[in-house]
Amino acid sequence: MPPDHRRFDADRFGWEGVETRLYKAGEGPWRDVTRQVLFAPEGDLPVEWRYFEVAPGGWTTLERHLHRHAVVIVRGAGRALVMGELRAVAAFDLVAIPPLSWHQFRAGEDGPLGFFCLVAAERDRPQLPGPADLAALAADPAVADFIRP
Amino acid sequence: MPPDHRRFDADRFGWEGVETRLYKAGEGPWRDVTRQVLFAPEGDLPVEWRYFEVAPGGWTTLERHLHRHAVVIVRGAGRALVMGELRAVAAFDLVAIPPLSWHQFRAGEDGPLGFFCLVAAERDRPQLPGPADLAALAADPAVADFIRP
Repeated sequence: MPPDHRRFDADRFGWEGVETRLYKAGEGPWRDVTRQVLFAPEGDLPVEWRYFEVAPGGWTTLERHLHRHAVVIVRGAGRALVMGELRAVAAFDLVAIPPLSWHQFRAGEDGPLGFFCLVAAERDRPQLPGPADLAALAADPAVADFIRP
Repeated sequence: MPPDHRRFDADRFGWEGVETRLYKAGEGPWRDVTRQVLFAPEGDLPVEWRYFEVAPGGWTTLERHLHRHAVVIVRGAGRALVMGELRAVAAFDLVAIPPLSWHQFRAGEDGPLGFFCLVAAERDRPQLPGPADLAALAADPAVADFIRP
């Protein structure tokens, strides 16, 4: 049984007993992102509730997968590619990422972008874009300028 | 497919296209609580992500059930009964409510208490405390003073 109450520490935007990790192991097409797992899968909630934080100027991986994301921005602001559209996102906005939708989050230059992201415990591995995918995404000049493959 | 991006409106602590409802239908052992469903169950995320807000001086139902809650406080502060203990909770604290644990959230008198609460889409109905349950809870004088059955 995990502890029932984990206090938040605003100074580090972190939680008691929750480790701040790299976004993904190793190098990859992402910059300056950390990950904290707030609730691990358990019992009738076979999902992971994570907090990701993108440092100023950073970005998450441009990827897609069969599994869904339910995202709530909770810190700062930035931009997101979702379903082929660029969106300015800010604290407490909701973003639903449906299956096989290319997505990427970028923080602004002036501050971090932090968000909760819910996923199923059992999920497929993300796919990275190939040349044809990138060409299709880049058909929109604003998207071409935004993405960091 | 739901809209992929719902903007937050800080003035009403609400979201585009999300209805603010009563906490539960009809009268009951709770006071001044509203509910907004941010993400309904869908596909590989058969869970509901809700936002509850307890107005100053209000409280949620004192109840227990087999299903789990994963809770993140996101607005204000208050107190919670979890696993027989009273906890002062404040924005971004995590609270895990395991099966069959009596729980109740109360806002302070000076401001609301708002929190995200994740539950499984399929779940059992809450149980209310009977006289023996209340007597057991009231064995701790602080809990006796806190609960609003």
